[in-house]
Amino acid sequence: MDAQILPNFLQKRTFLTPDRPALSFLGKTYTFSEVYERAYTVAGQLQAAGLTRGQFAGVLLRNHEDTVFILLALQLIDVKAVILNNRLTAEELIWQMNDSTSAFFLTENSFDEVSQKVVNSLDEISAIHKEDLFRTDPAEPALVEEINLDEICTVMYTSGTTGNPKGVLQTYGNHWWSAVGSALNLGLNEKDSWLCAVPIFHISGYSILMRSIIYGMKMVLFESFHEKKAIDAISDEKVTIMSAVSTMLTRIADELKNDKLPEYFRCMLLGGGPAAKSLLEVCKEKGIPVYQTYGMTETSSQIVTLAPEYSLSKLGSAGKPLFPSHLKIAAPNGKHANPGEAGEILVKGPNVTKGYLNRQEETAKKMKDGWLLTGDIGYVDKEGFLYVLDRRSDLIISGGENIYPAEIEGVLVSHSQISDAGVIGMKDDVWGEVPVAFIAGDENLDKKEVIKYCLERLAKYKVPKKLIIINEIPRNASKKILRRKLRELLEESGN
Amino acid sequence: MDAQILPNFLQKRTFLTPDRPALSFLGKTYTFSEVYERAYTVAGQLQAAGLTRGQFAGVLLRNHEDTVFILLALQLIDVKAVILNNRLTAEELIWQMNDSTSAFFLTENSFDEVSQKVVNSLDEISAIHKEDLFRTDPAEPALVEEINLDEICTVMYTSGTTGNPKGVLQTYGNHWWSAVGSALNLGLNEKDSWLCAVPIFHISGYSILMRSIIYGMKMVLFESFHEKKAIDAISDEKVTIMSAVSTMLTRIADELKNDKLPEYFRCMLLGGGPAAKSLLEVCKEKGIPVYQTYGMTETSSQIVTLAPEYSLSKLGSAGKPLFPSHLKIAAPNGKHANPGEAGEILVKGPNVTKGYLNRQEETAKKMKDGWLLTGDIGYVDKEGFLYVLDRRSDLIISGGENIYPAEIEGVLVSHSQISDAGVIGMKDDVWGEVPVAFIAGDENLDKKEVIKYCLERLAKYKVPKKLIIINEIPRNASKKILRRKLRELLEESGN
Repeated sequence: MDAQILPNFLQKRTFLTPDRPALSFLGKTYTFSEVYERAYTVAGQLQAAGLTRGQFAGVLLRNHEDTVFILLALQLIDVKAVILNNRLTAEELIWQMNDSTSAFFLTENSFDEVSQKVVNSLDEISAIHKEDLFRTDPAEPALVEEINLDEICTVMYTSGTTGNPKGVLQTYGNHWWSAVGSALNLGLNEKDSWLCAVPIFHISGYSILMRSIIYGMKMVLFESFHEKKAIDAISDEKVTIMSAVSTMLTRIADELKNDKLPEYFRCMLLGGGPAAKSLLEVCKEKGIPVYQTYGMTETSSQIVTLAPEYSLSKLGSAGKPLFPSHLKIAAPNGKHANPGEAGEILVKGPNVTKGYLNRQEETAKKMKDGWLLTGDIGYVDKEGFLYVLDRRSDLIISGGENIYPAEIEGVLVSHSQISDAGVIGMKDDVWGEVPVAFIAGDENLDKKEVIKYCLERLAKYKVPKKLIIINEIPRNASKKILRRKLRELLEESGN
Repeated sequence: MDAQILPNFLQKRTFLTPDRPALSFLGKTYTFSEVYERAYTVAGQLQAAGLTRGQFAGVLLRNHEDTVFILLALQLIDVKAVILNNRLTAEELIWQMNDSTSAFFLTENSFDEVSQKVVNSLDEISAIHKEDLFRTDPAEPALVEEINLDEICTVMYTSGTTGNPKGVLQTYGNHWWSAVGSALNLGLNEKDSWLCAVPIFHISGYSILMRSIIYGMKMVLFESFHEKKAIDAISDEKVTIMSAVSTMLTRIADELKNDKLPEYFRCMLLGGGPAAKSLLEVCKEKGIPVYQTYGMTETSSQIVTLAPEYSLSKLGSAGKPLFPSHLKIAAPNGKHANPGEAGEILVKGPNVTKGYLNRQEETAKKMKDGWLLTGDIGYVDKEGFLYVLDRRSDLIISGGENIYPAEIEGVLVSHSQISDAGVIGMKDDVWGEVPVAFIAGDENLDKKEVIKYCLERLAKYKVPKKLIIINEIPRNASKKILRRKLRELLEESGN
């Protein structure tokens, strides 16, 4: 028996606990057998539309019950979902569709404007709108009854320090081990219910969907985050666990005022970059059980999380690597860092990606001897608790979204009047950070026009909130941008 | 990254939750770091004694804290434990030691009589008594920091319908997946504590040890089962889960009288063969949360267990196969059985053995296309719940111990005055079943002498409780014993 073969996750879960609640969306609750029934029908409709096993399909869908059915239908027929960020421009979407050689483009009417542009520029690919799809006659679907954990399940794009976004391969095994590693840390109760108010197109959201079917647990899905609705849902839906980023948690803590969350709410899983100590202390006062965590698309969500017994005594730490995973810190001299010594965070484990879609070279650069070089900086204390000091030196985290300067710089220098550009993050009270661009080029550069140019090519959250024109972008001998210098310039400019 | 590589289980668990209770024995509790420290020292002592990675070592030890330290020490240095049933005779032990090519024989003074005989008959192998071992100076052990799930962790012997006992290979992965499959069914709470009053040399006990280190959970270890002590420990040690066989559960239910087990006691995992409905009904009345389960050495414990929500409505069923595992019923015509139709139970999954030590041919007979042919008979109902009708047609289950007629028959026919023998089970109020032997041979056969002969060669529980002399053992054309005929003869004899 190959240890890598498991039963199809949704089929098995439905067989085991058909009557347990699986999904709640806008007040309507579906059991696992109801979810399965819907996914089964959609699987038949997708196969009737021509999707076949092993293909890649771009998926541009909002947080919605239909999206759950479609994503699970794709798993039932083993079509690999290239999950597209809802906020991308047509240009960005086209790039990812081409790069992933997606054979289909699944979307919905609300994205019509952007999806029209995508379809126009892609040969032989037509958009399948869910509204149309759901009206078609389903075929009797040929389901994949057993799944090899080594098979790709999803692809999500991230960017490196240079170059274009790369498709992170997430196998069924990556998702499985992530869910199991999390359960061995947080525990597992048949009454658990996980609130997903983060995008399902992010690994933070998609991983909740996977846990739901692996654990047999209800996912309470929100269209988008709203602090009051979140607090209400925790009561109404008996939510026990919620995933959040700092901005969300701040708003919940504010909204709570002197109220408390119910006793059964046992875990606020806080990801998306290091949290301010002040926020953690507020939560401690208000009795919100915050579990800091560290993870990324390449690790299929959490890889380091603070275990229950240390949530207060190790305030500010991201915790220890989950049971199946490994972590080490590489000192600047390349050796193992000593406790307390900062260096690059390296991770490995069965939840870690095997690489980037169709990019052997970039994969080889990021993966050494099975270790993923995260580019993030941190240290571990004597007891092995991780403290993340900085996400990858250049990474900007804005309201939980990762922003990669290289991507913005690429767009800026494609502008005919800009010769060079450098982007860094600037502190922001609401979003944590926002991007700021330094540009060099034509004297007559019109900032408003540059912003407009960016808006056409970049998701809005990536568009620089401030443009600063300088004579020359500071670079080192090997022409790498000196972001440290840019930060100094930003401070001098009064920000 | 190879998905099969995990951190060393005990090391990782100790790193994650050093201060959690890990083991309680005779009122003394050890944390994970204390257990690790002891296992670490023993690992050094074992290496100093000459044990090296990859070897097999016979282990004949009683349920005791020292046994836990030794078994975990063997994992730390990746020496494969051939775990020997405490009740075997010297002859049986010698057979298993030879068959497994064990390089060492770890035991304790209380087994001196039998172990002396073992050592005398084995070339170049001396017994290492734990009492001596613990007095030696430990080496600095070379620990195995990462473990390939495909590696063999333990070997336990079982017998087939014919021939000698075979060593079942249990990999680290088999144990891991078994523990994870169980957690996905029973849930997981950091306050869990599992009472092990079954032998640790059985998979039922050893699997509790594995769950303890994988979950970070306290194991309460008993030297042997005692109903009153079990009830007391459930209160004193805050036990939440206990593994039992029918005879144990009957005694607990009797002892409880009108008392109840505490609320937090959430699972009585009942294995070792189908339970009487009357017992299940008594437990239902007394509020003992019985989870029937079906498993065997080859599946590293449970493979089918009744999920919480069905424990009452499906009384008498063993449940559904755990998440990672598969089950099917082969009808007598070789096809898939229909719901309700009885046939042989086939299982597969990552918790299922890859075969028998050094026995390719026997492995090939029991494993077809990844499926293990259990030889047990059962059916599944329309919803997929398994009902086990009979363990393997010839198997005798006596107080939770499996007894294989072929083994007893082999000993009987080796007696100079016995020409043929056939063994079957006879109902017994205390043990469920006991073995009965039909023998054919010399007229002057002395039953007492035959029993003595058996006692020298077979563990006491395997020695026939009754000998019936007949002219000829009924066999079919292909010379297989007709056990059905023997049962008729037994009934005719008034049993």
